[in-house]
Amino acid sequence: MSAKRVVIIGGVALGPKAACRLKRLEPDADVVIVDQDEYISYGGCGIPYFISGDISSVQELMSTSFHMQRTPQFFQDAKDVRVRTRTRALAIDRASKRVRVLDLASGGEEDLPYDRLVIATGSIPNKPPIPGIDLPGVTSVSNLHSAIAVKDRISGGKVDRAVIVGAGAIGCEMPEALGDLWGIETHLVEIEDQVLPGILDRSLAGIVRAHLEEKGVQLHLGRRVIEIRAVGLPSTSSAPMAEGGFEVKTSDGSIQADLVITAAGVRPNSELARSAGLVVSPSGAIVVNRMLQTSDPEIYAGGDCIEIQHLVTGKPVYFPQGSLANRQGRVIGTNLAGGAAKFEGTVGSFAIKIFDLAVASAGITPQSALKSGFQAEPVLVVQADRAHFYPTHDLIYFQLTVDRKTRRILGAQAVGAHGDAVIGRVNAIAAILPFKPAVEDISNLEIAYSPPFAAALDVVNAAGNTAENILDGLNRPMTPDEFERCFLLEESADCLCLDVRAPANAAPFVERYGDRWLNIPQETLNKRMDEVPRDKRLLLVCNSGARSYEAMRQLDRAGIDNTVNVQGGAAVLKKSGTAGPQPKD
Amino acid sequence: MSAKRVVIIGGVALGPKAACRLKRLEPDADVVIVDQDEYISYGGCGIPYFISGDISSVQELMSTSFHMQRTPQFFQDAKDVRVRTRTRALAIDRASKRVRVLDLASGGEEDLPYDRLVIATGSIPNKPPIPGIDLPGVTSVSNLHSAIAVKDRISGGKVDRAVIVGAGAIGCEMPEALGDLWGIETHLVEIEDQVLPGILDRSLAGIVRAHLEEKGVQLHLGRRVIEIRAVGLPSTSSAPMAEGGFEVKTSDGSIQADLVITAAGVRPNSELARSAGLVVSPSGAIVVNRMLQTSDPEIYAGGDCIEIQHLVTGKPVYFPQGSLANRQGRVIGTNLAGGAAKFEGTVGSFAIKIFDLAVASAGITPQSALKSGFQAEPVLVVQADRAHFYPTHDLIYFQLTVDRKTRRILGAQAVGAHGDAVIGRVNAIAAILPFKPAVEDISNLEIAYSPPFAAALDVVNAAGNTAENILDGLNRPMTPDEFERCFLLEESADCLCLDVRAPANAAPFVERYGDRWLNIPQETLNKRMDEVPRDKRLLLVCNSGARSYEAMRQLDRAGIDNTVNVQGGAAVLKKSGTAGPQPKD
Repeated sequence: MSAKRVVIIGGVALGPKAACRLKRLEPDADVVIVDQDEYISYGGCGIPYFISGDISSVQELMSTSFHMQRTPQFFQDAKDVRVRTRTRALAIDRASKRVRVLDLASGGEEDLPYDRLVIATGSIPNKPPIPGIDLPGVTSVSNLHSAIAVKDRISGGKVDRAVIVGAGAIGCEMPEALGDLWGIETHLVEIEDQVLPGILDRSLAGIVRAHLEEKGVQLHLGRRVIEIRAVGLPSTSSAPMAEGGFEVKTSDGSIQADLVITAAGVRPNSELARSAGLVVSPSGAIVVNRMLQTSDPEIYAGGDCIEIQHLVTGKPVYFPQGSLANRQGRVIGTNLAGGAAKFEGTVGSFAIKIFDLAVASAGITPQSALKSGFQAEPVLVVQADRAHFYPTHDLIYFQLTVDRKTRRILGAQAVGAHGDAVIGRVNAIAAILPFKPAVEDISNLEIAYSPPFAAALDVVNAAGNTAENILDGLNRPMTPDEFERCFLLEESADCLCLDVRAPANAAPFVERYGDRWLNIPQETLNKRMDEVPRDKRLLLVCNSGARSYEAMRQLDRAGIDNTVNVQGGAAVLKKSGTAGPQPKD
Repeated sequence: MSAKRVVIIGGVALGPKAACRLKRLEPDADVVIVDQDEYISYGGCGIPYFISGDISSVQELMSTSFHMQRTPQFFQDAKDVRVRTRTRALAIDRASKRVRVLDLASGGEEDLPYDRLVIATGSIPNKPPIPGIDLPGVTSVSNLHSAIAVKDRISGGKVDRAVIVGAGAIGCEMPEALGDLWGIETHLVEIEDQVLPGILDRSLAGIVRAHLEEKGVQLHLGRRVIEIRAVGLPSTSSAPMAEGGFEVKTSDGSIQADLVITAAGVRPNSELARSAGLVVSPSGAIVVNRMLQTSDPEIYAGGDCIEIQHLVTGKPVYFPQGSLANRQGRVIGTNLAGGAAKFEGTVGSFAIKIFDLAVASAGITPQSALKSGFQAEPVLVVQADRAHFYPTHDLIYFQLTVDRKTRRILGAQAVGAHGDAVIGRVNAIAAILPFKPAVEDISNLEIAYSPPFAAALDVVNAAGNTAENILDGLNRPMTPDEFERCFLLEESADCLCLDVRAPANAAPFVERYGDRWLNIPQETLNKRMDEVPRDKRLLLVCNSGARSYEAMRQLDRAGIDNTVNVQGGAAVLKKSGTAGPQPKD
């Protein structure tokens, strides 16, 4: 029997991983990777750090951990895998099991026969239907070519002001890349009225928004880009960027900029698969089984061009992530060698760094859980990431999504300054989400304790405990969002804040909100119960939501139960500024 | 019906937690905590940081996160819980449901009646049977009194040199506390031949040992303390410390010191329970069910005086941890109020900071897994904690314990410089250990990816993949320990190192070990296969164990299969110095 012939279309992340795994299992396999680009096997998620200058050259994004360049020669020598760059796959002929490819250098075409085929064609950046979106210099940063062009332009001193269209993950990462070293004034325009829409719940998104503003980023939330117009010199067809600038017209204004970056998400690059008659979802993602076979069992697909199962909702999801592509690549490599490895799906783990803030998420948000038919409840707690007496501690803002009916944990999100600490907590939740944990599993999740690294009762456990208390009706929560609406926007006369912190903490709020903000410290509440108004709805506030919960229990005992507990307390209100400009304290 | 009377014996961690939880659920309960000490409700794990000076006063260890002191008055006002300090429980009369207590100030005795009783008597430091161990000035640091005495002596400038007896957790934490600010020369004496015996596997313990040595700590491993003798002025009976110094005689020498700290672990303080006829284990721990009831269902016990179930082995274990005490306290509080909460057990999560190194563990080590009847296999990998191209990355040394028969993950341990990153990884494993995960669950564990926080294929996943490869017979591992024995100690003539790194990395080793250390870079191996000796056992080495695995697959293909892959590669050999003094490279 002659060696198995495997053709892999796509040379970033999944393709090389599948190829190398296969070769380790079946060294005699004849493997060729084709990619239309000259750059292959690079860490695309590192692009913002290349643009920022943290990473000095694109070569670093293409190097192994032992400092070799992942060139075609490297793959040939170290992996016995042939890589043909600048070679575009034009069509798949499933009947004859051949891929038609075009050599972009020579213009020549040829057929590559295969016994097994892997489609790893990745994604295409979305291009919002905005007049001017195709102007030279209006660009995504989705590949190394655009990244290099953007960095060349920036480092050439040609960019004083930039507009980013879309405040998703890339849109929120880029302001630091543009601002920190290069000092570029950055405007971030987002059609939704929050940053990271669909990714982060509103309460935590408010914290991110405030942080971006603090870092000088000009936010235009709830704004649509109407048109992009070139100003100044037009580019020549050979120059990737216009030499002049742009005028970006939004739904309520206009921004002059030297650079416009579109960051409106990506979609599966599945045209080749669709043309070959493979099953593709309505949203354009290639449909695969758990062995990552397409509707043609001799053709595998993985990475940013497929849809996978969401392990929390049980529904298909498009979740393009380099990490998943790598894991899927290994599964495909195993199966190409005759194995039966499975990729079960995703819990949607996600992390980004936004200036000095880390953001992490796993599972689903309360909003998306409601859409999926769960009785979703947000549970927000704020606590130090180390023992509160340990000097370097900082706060983690941590939210669970809980299903009221089944007491199941559906997701977790967190924001905080110590990135590894934030991501580490969410990873612990991500790890158990496939096992369908209940709130009790989180209350007792065994975060290792040592004062420099965790609290004795860690923020994760506190969230589990709080979830139990909410589900058991002991803690009646109000989200920071509801607080904003009820107390600040509607200024409802029926509502009164009862601040149970020390007078020094409460004073600025009392000063600002007058008789709508009452202060009775929790430890004096039992003695001062007769001062508590019984004709109002009381919004209980402390620094974090913990002492105000204690106060709620005391008030309940006294028969005062028209109360709600403001989740995350003053810590969240101050950090997010969702309650408008906050008094200082 | 009159209010339920609850007596709690012990006012640190579990006792207050149980009391406060109960009061939130059943505000009318009549709760009293008795404690023989004047200090209550303090963070005992913070003691090393109080001694180091990171925490300036013991008050900080007794304060809430909102800066109130947890005094008896605080518990009265804020929690409606009575606390009687300096009140010793003498005996429990289960028939009449009374606790006999002694007021240490007045000398008066009285009986406290209870409907429910909680025993939270904690632990007692072990005192090794060494002549001189009772000398004043030979002390543990297990409570605030001894901590204050030690710090007073240190800050009074009376300690130039200290001896710590026992290199367990406290023993390994203390050298930083003594050395960093105070500049005390510290000797660490341990009867076993590794640091953190029973806690950390040998390979990783070697890294910790090397780090302690690098920080100037004098290690005396495999040494027994024979006698401690007072030198100089004896103390008066009222002074907690001798004014003179000590001579510490070990099995092979003698150390002069101004301070001797014993850190030989703790045992359950269960005498009160035993005297009351409650069931106590052979090792002295109070036996409880999952609702944390003792053999008398009206008496609960928790914290450092009980044994619990190990969720990996299914066997009882004594695992005193402040974090578990807090979680158990909540369970007891719930059950005191008529609930049915359960504490299922522990996976043994553990973390400490040792100078600039973080150490974390969950589950069981290969050694203890073998003792428990598992076919335990260590799987050691080394990888950057961020994308390897991200500037701030550092290495994590990560080891799984895997059961060869069932492919079950039994534990994980890690060491590294970025503490939160190290602990976060181990916490993710800790989270799923109760669900009895298989290696495949680790390969696909969804660590959130972003270059500043993780690798696309994170170290956790790499460990899972490596475990699969080992169990599938593709990767034949050799531990660093075995390498040391085989290559360095026995200098077996049948063994040859094949270093597949770049020549620049390999050169110092080749120079040192001559023709026993062969260098053929992995990417040249296919072409240079005829240079590979076929009459020797080849120990394959790269920086981490990954490229040498690749080489093993290539060699297997060529029919050269008398090879083993040195786990963790040169990274571990260099970092641990287990292989003796290492060449620099």
